[in-house]
Amino acid sequence: MSECIFCSIIEGKRPASMVYEDDRVAAFMDIRPLNRGHVVVVPKSHGADLVEMSVEDGARVFRVAQMIAGVMRHKGIEGVDCEGINLWLADGSAAGQTVFHAHLHVVPRSKGDGFGLKFPPHYGEEPPRGDLDDLAAKIRAGLAAATA
Amino acid sequence: MSECIFCSIIEGKRPASMVYEDDRVAAFMDIRPLNRGHVVVVPKSHGADLVEMSVEDGARVFRVAQMIAGVMRHKGIEGVDCEGINLWLADGSAAGQTVFHAHLHVVPRSKGDGFGLKFPPHYGEEPPRGDLDDLAAKIRAGLAAATA
Repeated sequence: MSECIFCSIIEGKRPASMVYEDDRVAAFMDIRPLNRGHVVVVPKSHGADLVEMSVEDGARVFRVAQMIAGVMRHKGIEGVDCEGINLWLADGSAAGQTVFHAHLHVVPRSKGDGFGLKFPPHYGEEPPRGDLDDLAAKIRAGLAAATA
Repeated sequence: MSECIFCSIIEGKRPASMVYEDDRVAAFMDIRPLNRGHVVVVPKSHGADLVEMSVEDGARVFRVAQMIAGVMRHKGIEGVDCEGINLWLADGSAAGQTVFHAHLHVVPRSKGDGFGLKFPPHYGEEPPRGDLDDLAAKIRAGLAAATA
């Protein structure tokens, strides 16, 4: 636990430029911003995985991301170019997670900023409806089993 | 409203491979998947922007994304390669939004899948702490004004 960078920040043992803090959540500036104004929203309770995040923590993380997005996009922050917002969360190293304390990125966007998604080679193909229906049925069954 | 693709799906007027549905939220297979198993989670109430999403809808959208991510990553779905998960939301055309009914993407990931972030040219630079502190102070002030 003491090795977790985000826990150290939350405990006040490591510097951070804090944007927001309440009983459940902290939000601070990313030190390697994808764009100027990039913020990460973090539950105070440590958990590496998205699924370890409690319902209450997840709801609060999303809400705080919305609030920050709203201020950046609709009120405007001097020095932050913001014509749009991306939220991004990486769960697992295969997904690009590098800090193993779950967190949601809030990234201000402007046209031509050079940031975005790298699309896979097959992107744009529309699978047959039968294939999508089959996948949907399997995920529905998985959800039903998980909540049974 | 009748022109919104996602509203049409929610109203049952357009086909979709439905993964989950409750009183607030629907989740269905993306017809142009970034990876096999790509799902979008959508509040039933129409709103283009992230900030138009109610607190309750935002909480439910995030919860359903967590549930789907958990089933794909930890239980496993036959035919879906999932070593990790990305959540992605695009708010505004500058952020890559193409369907103007707010939605959260749930994308299963595996190593070497070719999907990911396209980093901007300046990525990796660590801004001076004073610059981050200044931005954080401005965002804090914006949040305080928004909730005053």
